[in-house]
Amino acid sequence: MRSVTAENITETFIGYFGKDTDPRVKEIMASLAHHLHGFIKDTKLTHDEWRESLELLKWTGEITTPERNEFVLLSDVLGVSSLVDMINSNPAATSSSVLGPFHVTDAPPMALGADFKRHYEGEVILVEGYIKDTDGNVIPGASVDIWQTAPNGLYSSQDDEQDINSFHGVFTADENGYYSFTTIRPVSYTVPSDGPVGKILDATGRHPWRPSHLHYIVSAEGYRSLVTEVFPNDDPYLDQDTVFGVREDLVISYKPQAAGTFPKEGFELSGKVDSAFSKIDFDAILIKK
Amino acid sequence: MRSVTAENITETFIGYFGKDTDPRVKEIMASLAHHLHGFIKDTKLTHDEWRESLELLKWTGEITTPERNEFVLLSDVLGVSSLVDMINSNPAATSSSVLGPFHVTDAPPMALGADFKRHYEGEVILVEGYIKDTDGNVIPGASVDIWQTAPNGLYSSQDDEQDINSFHGVFTADENGYYSFTTIRPVSYTVPSDGPVGKILDATGRHPWRPSHLHYIVSAEGYRSLVTEVFPNDDPYLDQDTVFGVREDLVISYKPQAAGTFPKEGFELSGKVDSAFSKIDFDAILIKK
Repeated sequence: MRSVTAENITETFIGYFGKDTDPRVKEIMASLAHHLHGFIKDTKLTHDEWRESLELLKWTGEITTPERNEFVLLSDVLGVSSLVDMINSNPAATSSSVLGPFHVTDAPPMALGADFKRHYEGEVILVEGYIKDTDGNVIPGASVDIWQTAPNGLYSSQDDEQDINSFHGVFTADENGYYSFTTIRPVSYTVPSDGPVGKILDATGRHPWRPSHLHYIVSAEGYRSLVTEVFPNDDPYLDQDTVFGVREDLVISYKPQAAGTFPKEGFELSGKVDSAFSKIDFDAILIKK
Repeated sequence: MRSVTAENITETFIGYFGKDTDPRVKEIMASLAHHLHGFIKDTKLTHDEWRESLELLKWTGEITTPERNEFVLLSDVLGVSSLVDMINSNPAATSSSVLGPFHVTDAPPMALGADFKRHYEGEVILVEGYIKDTDGNVIPGASVDIWQTAPNGLYSSQDDEQDINSFHGVFTADENGYYSFTTIRPVSYTVPSDGPVGKILDATGRHPWRPSHLHYIVSAEGYRSLVTEVFPNDDPYLDQDTVFGVREDLVISYKPQAAGTFPKEGFELSGKVDSAFSKIDFDAILIKK
């Protein structure tokens, strides 16, 4: 008769695996048991704490809807999402960073040089860059899917005043791998904090802020898609992104531009642009499949 | 500017804690991050595997109802519930074992010697024992809350043919700490396997069976309540309980009794009892608060 003890439970768990279990499933489940059991033993978790943890997971399920996946947010604020990004990154390519829950699929195609901000007001930003491979060759025709917050700090799916494609668009790089658009400066914002994730942030004395950023998904035939974010180097939350998304190569200076450099050929934006106008140069480097 | 890396993310996470954070919360969350991050790094979890894990948690939330908490079941089959029981056990007392999801609160009080099985048929079992403290002194008046499966392998809350209090009852030990009742042999049964837990069991080649058992909650003023289970030593699933509930001191032999030893004074059961009649002696030892 097997007597399960705190000493042999992980080994007992592994001993239960069927002979024909997929080796990768075995590896993942054995490691999960090792770390879950280690967590319980290291903390000497009490029954009350265990019950409270399960209640928190139950609440995470209850607050999750098709528009709001609190499990993803939980993974984000625990650093899990970012760690998955980092260990799957290739140092020769642009770092990936969290997708987040606000991406809209089937965003409208936009012409190079389009004015992404439409009727919204704010500090105008000109964004330009090249999509390249790890050898420095440009990738013509790459798809550059961009999204960001409106000036109120909300993404389109969070905001009744925006239509769903607001501040979302897909550019196609030209034959030189070049893309460009104008927009307004994205703003720092808070992750939803009215659920279990907010409770965790609160209990650990953490704020819910993320530094402002532009989201990118860059993809091209024959390359691994890159999901990433680009941060300005002057954001006050750069050092303490609540979802751990900041990487050194994703922090870009917003270069001040002389007034009167717009209108410029190839851009939709026209009319007087005042001195607060700035420019981001961001090249994305993709890995061959 | 902080660049978060796979090497410093756990330390960064811990660095985010507020100064006034409760030390126990800090300890638990730091250990959780250490083990979660360790799991991701040790397995080099891919984006697809991470997404699949989050989908599994989302499904766990979706299938959870007031009557079925799949998060508890997940904790059970991963060995977490049993490990929490074990590390909070005192070796001088009776081992605790999983509560499970089928306990009915406010079960009816029953007189000592009551016939728990009512109209159900099966192998008759006489259960007797004493409730004691860790010094061997009896605890008069202790409450002994018992529940078990019906012969069809179902608990009352799973079975339309049983009323909610079927195979549930609360006995009060007498002045000698003695309790007794008759019932029928509980049966081995399967945990619900039509949800994410079933998917995990299936993927790892595990069966959903639990060895048969009687559930106990024993409580008395001034003592820590004991939640436990008592298993017969001849159950085929004793070595492979899918929720890891079996402990050496909870495995009891069902002693065959001579036919004709019933009717007996102090017991409700009367009439001829055939030779399959057996007896369990189970004493529960409680810890002073």
